[in-house]
Amino acid sequence: MNITILGGGGFLGLRIAQYLARTGTLGGKAATSLTLFDLHEPPPLVAPFPVIRLAGDIVALPEAAIPPGTDVVFHLAAVVSAQAEADYDLGRRVNLRGTDAVVDACRRLTSNGGKPPRVVFTSSVASFSGGQGANLSDDARQVPANSYGAQKAAAELILADACRRGFMDTVSLRLPTVIVRPGRPNKAASSFFSAILREPLLGLETELPVPDDFAAWICSPRSAAGWLLHAAALDSGALGLDRGINPPGLSVTIAELLAGLDAVRPGASSLVKRVPDPAVAAIVGPWPPLFTPSRAPRLGFAPHESAIDLIRAFIEDDLAATRADRGLPIGACQSGPDG
Amino acid sequence: MNITILGGGGFLGLRIAQYLARTGTLGGKAATSLTLFDLHEPPPLVAPFPVIRLAGDIVALPEAAIPPGTDVVFHLAAVVSAQAEADYDLGRRVNLRGTDAVVDACRRLTSNGGKPPRVVFTSSVASFSGGQGANLSDDARQVPANSYGAQKAAAELILADACRRGFMDTVSLRLPTVIVRPGRPNKAASSFFSAILREPLLGLETELPVPDDFAAWICSPRSAAGWLLHAAALDSGALGLDRGINPPGLSVTIAELLAGLDAVRPGASSLVKRVPDPAVAAIVGPWPPLFTPSRAPRLGFAPHESAIDLIRAFIEDDLAATRADRGLPIGACQSGPDG
Repeated sequence: MNITILGGGGFLGLRIAQYLARTGTLGGKAATSLTLFDLHEPPPLVAPFPVIRLAGDIVALPEAAIPPGTDVVFHLAAVVSAQAEADYDLGRRVNLRGTDAVVDACRRLTSNGGKPPRVVFTSSVASFSGGQGANLSDDARQVPANSYGAQKAAAELILADACRRGFMDTVSLRLPTVIVRPGRPNKAASSFFSAILREPLLGLETELPVPDDFAAWICSPRSAAGWLLHAAALDSGALGLDRGINPPGLSVTIAELLAGLDAVRPGASSLVKRVPDPAVAAIVGPWPPLFTPSRAPRLGFAPHESAIDLIRAFIEDDLAATRADRGLPIGACQSGPDG
Repeated sequence: MNITILGGGGFLGLRIAQYLARTGTLGGKAATSLTLFDLHEPPPLVAPFPVIRLAGDIVALPEAAIPPGTDVVFHLAAVVSAQAEADYDLGRRVNLRGTDAVVDACRRLTSNGGKPPRVVFTSSVASFSGGQGANLSDDARQVPANSYGAQKAAAELILADACRRGFMDTVSLRLPTVIVRPGRPNKAASSFFSAILREPLLGLETELPVPDDFAAWICSPRSAAGWLLHAAALDSGALGLDRGINPPGLSVTIAELLAGLDAVRPGASSLVKRVPDPAVAAIVGPWPPLFTPSRAPRLGFAPHESAIDLIRAFIEDDLAATRADRGLPIGACQSGPDG
């Protein structure tokens, strides 16, 4: 399997790359090469197969990013929600013109007689609206309430059409809000969902811009990466024209997340300060907090773990690296998930 | 009202222009200027207001096409279904990049303090699928089975987002298959729906590529133009984030259309030859033949006339001009709708 990750230096891209390097396989087949492409050159990776690291502009995607013989492309390159809202041109350029460039790269492969690569695309819960009362089925229309979601939904249409035309074999996953993100706050409007768990675990105060009873449709990095890997290997024959999948996320309120935090690290939620932010609330407010996926379970996408397990997984996978990355001292409350 | 028609030299564009020239008003307000833009310069038009005719590429839309002070833009410029299927680059360029150019033109107006113009966009039944058994509600997802439909659905998303951002005030009409088109067959896969009525009325043989019991969701040019004019003037305050409207078309089978033809011109349907065409059937086959719109009637879109009235309207409005345009002699069977 020759594999490309566009956005290979990003949060989920790195996690998938590390999985491939660790196991040497994808969907039970041996990985034979991995190409990581991002705006900045992705970090080195030790793997049992050649790893090519490329830096560049997705809109001017070099042929080497999706070379002849590519079997799987993870298309994770994107401008995220708050940034796409703040900079319309940049969001449109990366999220739409970038997707066109992926289509064109795959067209070149297939026009030269190559097999259409599986393209796994990360769409988003942000492509839906409906607000706190919504409970969406697989048949729900995408009526986005932000530019990021509109661009993701439009890109899904373009990639589904490219699939129908035989340029690629598309699977689009509409990821829930992924938490807990390691590192620092980013420009996603949903950044606070991670911060209210991550920052207290680092011993730091953080701000909560929405009410405690605000509900959200979330997933862990572990589940997101697992679903993306599953999407890369599943039998796509049953998908037909409809290439979009709502994976089985978790619906939680802020209060439930903070209760989970206190269960794992008693008292930690006292570091979360209520500071309403109408600009953030305006972006995340319309995102539906609940879906009832039926297609994803049928296609073998694994159910989501509990909120407490999600928090424990962050501590196991990412807390130490996040602390080191941010130059924070090791304190009394970092002894582990039961500390 | 300063009005622009992009695709102003096309079938529906010309009809709207002629209505404006004849009445001098749009939605009860005086029309003060009309700008017609198309790939080729639209024909002259005598009107009680200045008419500017421009030729150019929609992707490089000149500022004069949507000048400061524009109140209404009809965005009808498109590469149609069979052509977009045959030439992926051209379809994507005109149907998507062209729409981006319209967004950018309206952004310039509003960034200079201008009012967001009403943009009336022609989306299409081809943005849906479901096949002969489908009966779609207003909430039906757009799962296109052709590039034209995919590009129209993606453009709807881009225009709805531009509306949300305040660049324009968008109303997208998902037009049924518009018949009877005057003139000659065009590159739409749905061209035969018009030809099986128009050609026999001209005394000419024509080919039917689908079975007689094939059903379609259609509308007349009169209804389409009426709906587009209504969309230009309606109160858009109730639309919210969802700017797409399924207008109240007519669901008919080929057999019903041919019975209507024979009712108006006895024996005319004998000129229709059954010549199955799998390529055409593959494009039009997935288009749903029936919708149950509830939003459009609430918003005041007029119900559709009967199939017989549709055929009579073609004879009244377009038959003589079509005959002259194609250099056909006036024969015995052209005495009028009851001849």
